[in-house]
Amino acid sequence: MSSKPLVVFTPSGKRGHFEKGTSILQIARKLGVDLDSVCGGRGICSKCQITPSYGEFTKHGVTVSADALSEWNKVEERYHEKRGLAEGRRLGCQACVQGDVVIDVPAESQVHKQVIRKDASVRSVNMNPATRLFYVEVQEPDMHEPSGDFERLKNALQDQWSINDVELDYFQLNKLQRVLRKGNWAVTVALYNDHTNKTPRIIEIWPGLYEKGLYGLAIDLGSTTIAAHLTDLKSGDVLKSAGAMNPQIRFGEDLMSRVSYSMMNVGGDKEMTTVVREAINSLAKQLIIDAEIEKNALVEVVFVCNPVMHHLLLGIDPVELGQAPFALASSNAMTVRTSELDLTEMNPSGMCYILPCIAGHVGADAAAVALSEEPNKSNDLVLVVDVGTNAEILLGNKSKVLACSSPTGPAFEGAQISSGQRAAPGAIERIEIDPVTKEPRFRVIGSSLWSDEKGFDESIKNSGVTGICGSGIIEAVAELRMAGLMDESGLIGSAELTGSDRCIPDGRTHSYVIHDQSDQNGPKITVSQNDIRAIQLAKSALYAGARLLMDEMEVEKVDRVVLAGAFGAHISSKHAMVLGMIPDVALEKVQSAGNAAGTGARIALCDISSRKSIESTVNKIEKIETAIEPKFQEHFVAANAIPHKTDPFPELAKIVELPSVLFNSGAGKKSRARRKTRILNNAD
Amino acid sequence: MSSKPLVVFTPSGKRGHFEKGTSILQIARKLGVDLDSVCGGRGICSKCQITPSYGEFTKHGVTVSADALSEWNKVEERYHEKRGLAEGRRLGCQACVQGDVVIDVPAESQVHKQVIRKDASVRSVNMNPATRLFYVEVQEPDMHEPSGDFERLKNALQDQWSINDVELDYFQLNKLQRVLRKGNWAVTVALYNDHTNKTPRIIEIWPGLYEKGLYGLAIDLGSTTIAAHLTDLKSGDVLKSAGAMNPQIRFGEDLMSRVSYSMMNVGGDKEMTTVVREAINSLAKQLIIDAEIEKNALVEVVFVCNPVMHHLLLGIDPVELGQAPFALASSNAMTVRTSELDLTEMNPSGMCYILPCIAGHVGADAAAVALSEEPNKSNDLVLVVDVGTNAEILLGNKSKVLACSSPTGPAFEGAQISSGQRAAPGAIERIEIDPVTKEPRFRVIGSSLWSDEKGFDESIKNSGVTGICGSGIIEAVAELRMAGLMDESGLIGSAELTGSDRCIPDGRTHSYVIHDQSDQNGPKITVSQNDIRAIQLAKSALYAGARLLMDEMEVEKVDRVVLAGAFGAHISSKHAMVLGMIPDVALEKVQSAGNAAGTGARIALCDISSRKSIESTVNKIEKIETAIEPKFQEHFVAANAIPHKTDPFPELAKIVELPSVLFNSGAGKKSRARRKTRILNNAD
Repeated sequence: MSSKPLVVFTPSGKRGHFEKGTSILQIARKLGVDLDSVCGGRGICSKCQITPSYGEFTKHGVTVSADALSEWNKVEERYHEKRGLAEGRRLGCQACVQGDVVIDVPAESQVHKQVIRKDASVRSVNMNPATRLFYVEVQEPDMHEPSGDFERLKNALQDQWSINDVELDYFQLNKLQRVLRKGNWAVTVALYNDHTNKTPRIIEIWPGLYEKGLYGLAIDLGSTTIAAHLTDLKSGDVLKSAGAMNPQIRFGEDLMSRVSYSMMNVGGDKEMTTVVREAINSLAKQLIIDAEIEKNALVEVVFVCNPVMHHLLLGIDPVELGQAPFALASSNAMTVRTSELDLTEMNPSGMCYILPCIAGHVGADAAAVALSEEPNKSNDLVLVVDVGTNAEILLGNKSKVLACSSPTGPAFEGAQISSGQRAAPGAIERIEIDPVTKEPRFRVIGSSLWSDEKGFDESIKNSGVTGICGSGIIEAVAELRMAGLMDESGLIGSAELTGSDRCIPDGRTHSYVIHDQSDQNGPKITVSQNDIRAIQLAKSALYAGARLLMDEMEVEKVDRVVLAGAFGAHISSKHAMVLGMIPDVALEKVQSAGNAAGTGARIALCDISSRKSIESTVNKIEKIETAIEPKFQEHFVAANAIPHKTDPFPELAKIVELPSVLFNSGAGKKSRARRKTRILNNAD
Repeated sequence: MSSKPLVVFTPSGKRGHFEKGTSILQIARKLGVDLDSVCGGRGICSKCQITPSYGEFTKHGVTVSADALSEWNKVEERYHEKRGLAEGRRLGCQACVQGDVVIDVPAESQVHKQVIRKDASVRSVNMNPATRLFYVEVQEPDMHEPSGDFERLKNALQDQWSINDVELDYFQLNKLQRVLRKGNWAVTVALYNDHTNKTPRIIEIWPGLYEKGLYGLAIDLGSTTIAAHLTDLKSGDVLKSAGAMNPQIRFGEDLMSRVSYSMMNVGGDKEMTTVVREAINSLAKQLIIDAEIEKNALVEVVFVCNPVMHHLLLGIDPVELGQAPFALASSNAMTVRTSELDLTEMNPSGMCYILPCIAGHVGADAAAVALSEEPNKSNDLVLVVDVGTNAEILLGNKSKVLACSSPTGPAFEGAQISSGQRAAPGAIERIEIDPVTKEPRFRVIGSSLWSDEKGFDESIKNSGVTGICGSGIIEAVAELRMAGLMDESGLIGSAELTGSDRCIPDGRTHSYVIHDQSDQNGPKITVSQNDIRAIQLAKSALYAGARLLMDEMEVEKVDRVVLAGAFGAHISSKHAMVLGMIPDVALEKVQSAGNAAGTGARIALCDISSRKSIESTVNKIEKIETAIEPKFQEHFVAANAIPHKTDPFPELAKIVELPSVLFNSGAGKKSRARRKTRILNNAD
């Protein structure tokens, strides 16, 4: 055995023999143990806290004695008095090895700590952010050896952190001298060093030791809503989230209307670029205030978005995305400066990362879903569906991943539905129709009671019942079918035919009344024939996209379905399958992934190696363009019916088949044909 | 002998055997022969013109036959019809080798052509600009293989030019798609690829073949004036030059007043930054109009300036430069974007290069002088003096170069002189005083006649005689001394003492009248005692700086003196030596280098390897800080007199020594002491 003490680190298991008197931080660095330090071992940042194992015992094959480390010293004493050091903890930069010892590095002292995703899925992320803090002590200027302050700061980073070459962001140049002097020649720099091989860049400087942390925004920039998650770049925690409507809505509800707006109005793209950037600035401002962080500490943003939002965010006219061959200006991931995107409510030297786009219709949001759900690492064949105004669909496993986008339209979000509304208190989100009585019962956002339960009226007295949201309308349509109120083609029967006086005439077709308060000047919430048609078109588009990928993959069934998106989290798998939105699969094989795109954005924000991996994954994904595949249209038309030939659920057997000839479907057909054409043309 | 034909290029002498049918352009590329091409061999740019040697003869050891090259082809025919191809010229991309041949590459077909400096000095520059044009044909988008337009442009650059990785500047992103389609998938890109190892960046895109050239500005940003030279980045020619007063003058005449303005006024530095950038924008705008080039073709700027101008240009508060230890924010050369400096009158993706500063008082202008005059390559010991409001002084040879800056003040530029004015028509620029009659004769800017020559009055009738400029005042003071009108201490004698009624009482001292038109309501141009004092202070500072460097170098004399700057071009070496501005050296060893700083800027603009070399040279230059060297003050005080102990000119023997006790010098001394203190404090 060597005369030098043996040091073993947990949880890494790394070990080695070192000279007595060597600090634990130095040893950790030599062994490549992940032990944090911002101050570089000066005993002021406390990031290198460790828990040594003391006392006479044997652990990990090491017999540890009570005096294995140097004694608690003055630096630790002072630190403990000022800020407190938890029982059993030592500062790794102060404690020096004296004998064999086992050193535990607690999670909070690890730079690359593992962060488990909130929503209990298996995906885990190692913290590996692009921007990190480094404390340095800089040599003072000397007239006899004139050199710039920045050049001496560079030397300090080289000497004290072995960082060989850095750039100073232009916006930091002006404050450098002031901060160096304010910090009495000690400063903390935020160094941006991403997954590319570019020279690391100083993007912020604080006098002395800065300990308030660095933050980033993970932004899911949707056509309808913008969601921003303020994330701690050290812990990976989301401190605050905020959302806003995408103000571009006033230029057009869906993507194609916005592309048209740009085509029809000179400078229209610039208008839309300006408003979306302003909305992002508002969100950032609000989050900074809510989380009580300083603006300059917000140093990074990761964006996920569809191709049209991508172009409008970057200031690119999206006109090419509105017409074949749907060419993106650039499909690769992009790194730009916050200043280039006019993001004024964060660090002016901050950096934005935008995930790669998969194709002209399959954007960085789909890439983010792929990053979050990792179909490319799945053993079984998984279908990942992210439903928004467009559905992004991924199908694949370890050997191959296919992707497409399908124009579902806004019906799944409750838009273009007669009683539709966004998911908000008062909206019907669940519905059941008794197959015998044909009577509905429902649940409303904001209450946990069903409408036929005691206390329901009281529980919703603030909001009332105001409309029906996306998940509600899907359940309503499926329930209408299961209760025998609607035929395979999607026609609602008359009261005579169905035996329910909730089926009321509505023009040349019928509507089903869910809730009627019109006698009290309240709303009359119905499902109309047009609503059914809108849902049919949406679900056909979704199903046709999935089928198209299955054809390409040459499979007839998938092993697993992941429903992503806000919608995916609320939708009932059973109803989705009854409706024929997704291919049939055992119910327990349908998972909700929550906001997978947002999760992908967070992962890319916290871990630069994930940026590298998604860039490579996206290159390998095979893109299927629904707009030009004749089979898509075939599938689309074929998927229009709600047949229930395959019936995984016993209760579906109760469906009363209605003779479809009894339904008057003339008007419906025309309208359907018209809308289908429009959706197919506006294939985004 | 090989069966493959032998191809020999002149002037390079490169040679090799190649398969019959290989184009001369391809052969040139394989041999590394410098033959230009923007279109990559498509026969449309005509940059690859060559002159083959035809006919039965032997040249460079090659027997050339008449059919050594393929016949004149249709592409050449078409080109010749459209634009004309000079007699004997071929297009290198069309002419293919058939037999042994000698190919001459004319200068205009060389990328790295040698450009000889205008002013007939030995310095030559090889064209090697950072930004060059590349014509590419880009694959059209394909829905089945979706990729971004930029990614396909990258592929084209790789396939057609072997350029492996490029970035697209953010400001070009928006126009990329439009330009690609306008050019029908053929574009010319301006690629910026400087002397650092950064990824080359596309900073402009034109549809189709763009042939109007790229341009850069070489800017000498002085405290008093700004000079800008619009330079062709292919030929190195200066197309147009323009100058303007530095508008910062309203915040303070000299550098120290501007630093003070910044110290005394919150945001004062920003005001000065804004006005100087506006002035640069005005110059750029004017040059673009005058030279009839498009704004986007102006892609680069090189700046040379003193440290205070450097900081104010970059938006850095210069306060640290006003006090010991005179620390620069950054001393290294800097590359920033035109947009970062708010340079709006040029390409928004353009790049600025700012030469390195040597020390807190010795700026990028001194570095530019070093680049132009190359003291570091001199065999003999050369003293390079660039006189402005500050004098930059370099002393050295191949083994060592020293540098300092000396606070001469504005007297040499005609400022703070009673009858002083800037060099402009009407200003006295040359003067002689007859040692016997004590009568002056002079020449005025705008006329080639001396004032006592016939026709002089007529020749200046537009301007009149308005004042005395920098070179004039230096000659006047030296002539006063040589004519015996002034003693060694610098005092002007009275009329009684000197026997000249041009010596008139002026307060408690005397002035010498050069030209008096006050009886016609014209000016009375005199040299006052205070003028003498100002010149004495300036010349002492200059001389002391040079002496300090000589002390450091441990030499008593220099081999050669180079006078740089506008001033240097006009000053009389003889008078400068009589005055004691510069150390004594044989008259023929005093050269004028013209605007050496501006030349340095042009060199850095045209040749990126010169950027590398000046960065390395500046690192090696030893900096001497005059403000803290006690010996500087000793030299300064000692240099105050105008003694002529060393007398290289026989005519100086005629000087009549006046008994200095007869001069009243009380007031002069006080004033001198005060001003000396001020200059020494304001050591910049």
